[in-house]
Amino acid sequence: MRERNDCVHFVFGVPYETVSFRIGVTVLETPRRSELREEAILRATLELLAEVGYDQMTMDAVAARAQSSKATIYRKWPGKAELVVTAVRRRAGNPAKSPPDTGNLREDLLAVLRLMRNNLVGQDAALILGLMIAMHRDQGLAGTVRAQLIDDKREVFGAVIAQAVGRGELSASVDDTMFVEISSAMLFSRLFVTGEPLDDAFIRHLVDAVLLPLLDHQSSAR
Amino acid sequence: MRERNDCVHFVFGVPYETVSFRIGVTVLETPRRSELREEAILRATLELLAEVGYDQMTMDAVAARAQSSKATIYRKWPGKAELVVTAVRRRAGNPAKSPPDTGNLREDLLAVLRLMRNNLVGQDAALILGLMIAMHRDQGLAGTVRAQLIDDKREVFGAVIAQAVGRGELSASVDDTMFVEISSAMLFSRLFVTGEPLDDAFIRHLVDAVLLPLLDHQSSAR
Repeated sequence: MRERNDCVHFVFGVPYETVSFRIGVTVLETPRRSELREEAILRATLELLAEVGYDQMTMDAVAARAQSSKATIYRKWPGKAELVVTAVRRRAGNPAKSPPDTGNLREDLLAVLRLMRNNLVGQDAALILGLMIAMHRDQGLAGTVRAQLIDDKREVFGAVIAQAVGRGELSASVDDTMFVEISSAMLFSRLFVTGEPLDDAFIRHLVDAVLLPLLDHQSSAR
Repeated sequence: MRERNDCVHFVFGVPYETVSFRIGVTVLETPRRSELREEAILRATLELLAEVGYDQMTMDAVAARAQSSKATIYRKWPGKAELVVTAVRRRAGNPAKSPPDTGNLREDLLAVLRLMRNNLVGQDAALILGLMIAMHRDQGLAGTVRAQLIDDKREVFGAVIAQAVGRGELSASVDDTMFVEISSAMLFSRLFVTGEPLDDAFIRHLVDAVLLPLLDHQSSAR
């Protein structure tokens, strides 16, 4: 829907290389301006989530806080749930674009778990828990969050296990879903429930005492 | 501190079998009256927790809501954290007084996990998540909740594993702490994060695909 704009003199003298606009939209933006606007919207979303919670947060309030318009927000996100997911995801850091590939299953697992741990610890705890309360009330939000945040992890884990199968370290394909579930659950539980450390010693324990024995069991059982 | 009371005619004509009172306390109570008062305090605690959250909840508000006095509350609980733990624990149902003993490790584990699942599902989700937010802010509360709620589970799990060692089903003592952690974490994660079912099929999966293989691995490795 974006196309090169010929009317560059309309763009308020802002330096740019390419100017893009949507057909029917009168405000022209440089990519940088559009990025800044998106950042402002996502920052406003996170602030409001933390201040008033998901249920009380309105698109009007996000627009006002971001000094943007609702139309601008809806052009990019179909609804509140999707907006929140992008905001939380952005805050969590981008998921690894490509899975680690050290040539060794144990090292790959350690790398994936360290990444998951760092992302989780870097979050605002109250924000995550507030989001969980909202997810428990709102099935639409829950579905959107799960689809995005959980699938990110599932993809990286699946790739690491597929690499190990490819190298002959695992004798058959295994149930990667289960390993994502165990890993996420244990990191989450330590951070929010038991308060036990999430240090590298724990990551090694999780890999050596839980994940590798279970992978070995599954692999040899098939 | 309780002793038999001779002045039964002071007890407002309430039917009773034994009347007890604390030395120095002028109000006499039947055990039933004392129980009702405790119930009112714990109910008020849960209501206020859900309404205003742990941080905003005051002992004054609990006393007012329960039509009790702060002195009465402090006589039984040293502080807000302990009061909250009792209230949440009571709501979760009493922990199994004695661990299941079916004569078979798999059946015992299934029974323990079903009990943990039922207790968790029976809770008010917003209350639990609100408590977690408060625990994240207040290390004193966190310590008290963990010590009580987690140790309950650890005890039952430890007993079930000890029974299996006694019967020769496991060849050596194993790290029961790890099994409590995995089980709690996975139940919790399904309920609050992934929204996946907590049905009996999942309980069997957890026992057959996770706990028993890991127990077997630990047992044979020692």
